[in-house]
Amino acid sequence: MLLGASGFKCLAPNEAIAQQKILDVIRHNYELAGYAPIETPLVERTEILTAKGGGEIKSQIYGLRLLNPAKGAADDSKDLALRFDQTVPLARFVAANYNSLSFPFRRYVIGPVFRGERAKDGRYRQFIQADIDAVGNGSLDLLHDAEMVSVISRIFNELSIGPFTVRIGNRKILEGLLEATGLSSKKEISDALSSIDQLEKVGRKEVLRLLSKIGIENTAATDLLDLLANTGESSAVLANLKSKNLNPLFKEGVEELEQVVTAVKNLSVSDSDFVVDISIARGLDYYTGTVYETRLDKYPDIGSIASGGRYENLASTFTSRKLPGVGISIGVTRLLFLLIKEGLLSAESSSVAPVLITTTAGLEKYSGVYLNQANRLREAGIPTEVYLAPKDLGKQLQFANAKGFKIAVVTQEDEIEAGTISIKDLATRKQITVTNSEFVNTVKNLLQ
Amino acid sequence: MLLGASGFKCLAPNEAIAQQKILDVIRHNYELAGYAPIETPLVERTEILTAKGGGEIKSQIYGLRLLNPAKGAADDSKDLALRFDQTVPLARFVAANYNSLSFPFRRYVIGPVFRGERAKDGRYRQFIQADIDAVGNGSLDLLHDAEMVSVISRIFNELSIGPFTVRIGNRKILEGLLEATGLSSKKEISDALSSIDQLEKVGRKEVLRLLSKIGIENTAATDLLDLLANTGESSAVLANLKSKNLNPLFKEGVEELEQVVTAVKNLSVSDSDFVVDISIARGLDYYTGTVYETRLDKYPDIGSIASGGRYENLASTFTSRKLPGVGISIGVTRLLFLLIKEGLLSAESSSVAPVLITTTAGLEKYSGVYLNQANRLREAGIPTEVYLAPKDLGKQLQFANAKGFKIAVVTQEDEIEAGTISIKDLATRKQITVTNSEFVNTVKNLLQ
Repeated sequence: MLLGASGFKCLAPNEAIAQQKILDVIRHNYELAGYAPIETPLVERTEILTAKGGGEIKSQIYGLRLLNPAKGAADDSKDLALRFDQTVPLARFVAANYNSLSFPFRRYVIGPVFRGERAKDGRYRQFIQADIDAVGNGSLDLLHDAEMVSVISRIFNELSIGPFTVRIGNRKILEGLLEATGLSSKKEISDALSSIDQLEKVGRKEVLRLLSKIGIENTAATDLLDLLANTGESSAVLANLKSKNLNPLFKEGVEELEQVVTAVKNLSVSDSDFVVDISIARGLDYYTGTVYETRLDKYPDIGSIASGGRYENLASTFTSRKLPGVGISIGVTRLLFLLIKEGLLSAESSSVAPVLITTTAGLEKYSGVYLNQANRLREAGIPTEVYLAPKDLGKQLQFANAKGFKIAVVTQEDEIEAGTISIKDLATRKQITVTNSEFVNTVKNLLQ
Repeated sequence: MLLGASGFKCLAPNEAIAQQKILDVIRHNYELAGYAPIETPLVERTEILTAKGGGEIKSQIYGLRLLNPAKGAADDSKDLALRFDQTVPLARFVAANYNSLSFPFRRYVIGPVFRGERAKDGRYRQFIQADIDAVGNGSLDLLHDAEMVSVISRIFNELSIGPFTVRIGNRKILEGLLEATGLSSKKEISDALSSIDQLEKVGRKEVLRLLSKIGIENTAATDLLDLLANTGESSAVLANLKSKNLNPLFKEGVEELEQVVTAVKNLSVSDSDFVVDISIARGLDYYTGTVYETRLDKYPDIGSIASGGRYENLASTFTSRKLPGVGISIGVTRLLFLLIKEGLLSAESSSVAPVLITTTAGLEKYSGVYLNQANRLREAGIPTEVYLAPKDLGKQLQFANAKGFKIAVVTQEDEIEAGTISIKDLATRKQITVTNSEFVNTVKNLLQ
């Protein structure tokens, strides 16, 4: 009876506190770069969500239905569905509000999306996506593509979860390379991209076999994979790419990539935080230029923790206006549980308050004293819990340790009469006694 | 095609920024009182949500269904539904995690709930509820009831939306009064409570008629309504109540109320922020002791903006353990639009960043300079947007004014060559020119 729905996670306080830390860092850095929030609803009309093709995802959309519609009431629930990403709602929002928006339009959105896939390790049916996008009116400068890298690298530096690398590629380079091998039909190029996308999963030998099946000669395919494997320090990789001049598409991609990399450097992103990697394909029909992935250097198996890219036309299903965009999405729920599991993020404390006021002299007689202690700390901006149940000191300190408080305030009856307060540092187990007037400042200093 | 679903609001940046301000204040004060977040999923198994009676709300529950389930895959979507409040998920969470929780358990949760009712003015089908609850194991001290008043009054003081009043009542007093009029069956008392609940809506005369129909004599009914109308400064109202000794239930309610009020005062809640009002019924079968409502003094028609109370047994449908609780819920979405409409909350700026770097010397040649200006401000913690499109200064300043920036940084080509930067205060239209090295501190000072 008590089970939650499969694939829908509950966060206990320690996990919710850890998640809040991640969300705060993301929000802070999205806003630092001048991106403003919007909130699009979790429910859209089904025809909005299914307007654009999208094979696999269509089978994962949750529609709604009223369980017991009131008699006689019009019931439109059957035309409603839960969003599966934050991009389709953004496209509708921008198309619908085109006239009132200022372009380039910068927005972020942080919230849950829903996918009815089989729940398994690291896959959830409800998960938080934190998306940042810039959308242009007719055109959008490549400098926005560079800013995304700066924002993402600030976030992962601030989270202090170890070394990471943002990989920057460009789909035009990849498609130009495939054109140069002799492929010409859209179908062939799309199949080849799809094979290359699996490089890490199935290995070089298998990809060579797949590419040969599509019609790329073995030497050309080998050269191609060698070039794709050439990732690393951006100047060297770019110099190598610039030395080739395969076709206009390839050339355009290399020029774009170089502009982006130059701007990333102008934004003072550390060289150790990003590389050029032209093997990134990221989805097949969506991105048209810059593409990104982000890896934790010590946990390559985790895959990308922040991905995105540039799309030529955000809202083509909703408007005839050309609205190019670029964006990155962080899958917060998956990241949260990976970080906790690998010990990269502490989820030890179940308390947002550092201070517990214990109440062992009894609430009936002394609740006024204890509530006043709490109130003085709260007035000073220090989150404080008062233990409001009749237990002995041992039990109350057990509670303090279980929840992860830093400080317990321990005032016995004789101290109350004497006007003093004892403060126990729960880590060092040291206890000091101060006068009432020294109380708030002492706690403040202990917490610094 | 572009319409959102009826009853599901989109928040544009100015509205989302205003909402974020409310949510930040709520979260800050919930945490200040030592309440920790949890996150319960938006989707529960239908049997959890429908386990407890609840007439009207049952017709408003949205169930799920996969639109195009993949062939052969097990599809459990038909057993899933969207939550309609935050309390049922809390009850399941506490019952399921009973052994790992420390009691008294304090938690808050802020997130959307869904109700498939007809969308109309101020009623949304998806809206954010910000709930705070304390749950005891077997018993829960009344001091928790008092803390709720302190938290709520801190929130509305910090939001600075004008004078407000938290009304505190107790269901035992109300039920004791009804018993004293001669009603005895649960059904009669419940009907009478329901009539009293409509006092404000239908008026005194109509309620007298309804009460007489239920079987309360006219004199008794008149005395009752007179007593209920006697709200105000807590000591006087309490003294009056204590002078009567109608029956044990009434007496218990008065004693509880007095304890709560004493503790509210010990928590330094200002006398002008709360009153005793024993006419509050708040739902019929749910609350068993303390009940709260909160009104904006100048906008009585808005109704209660923060309501709640004490329930004897949170999770009786999920566990045989007795888990009493007390909580308050703030309906954030409704509050947001009311505050914006009444001009009590500014939703003028669409920018989270106070500073716009204009780029009129041209991005092709000078993007490095402009990106560096942005980067220096961001390093100093100042949210900054760079205008990354080729427009003349007039257009860029138009953009700055439309979005509500405070400062525009204006650096023309000759200034770049001379190593100076001009900073324009968009409110006063004053412009000053400083050297590169004075730049960050000047902006900082202007923003203070």
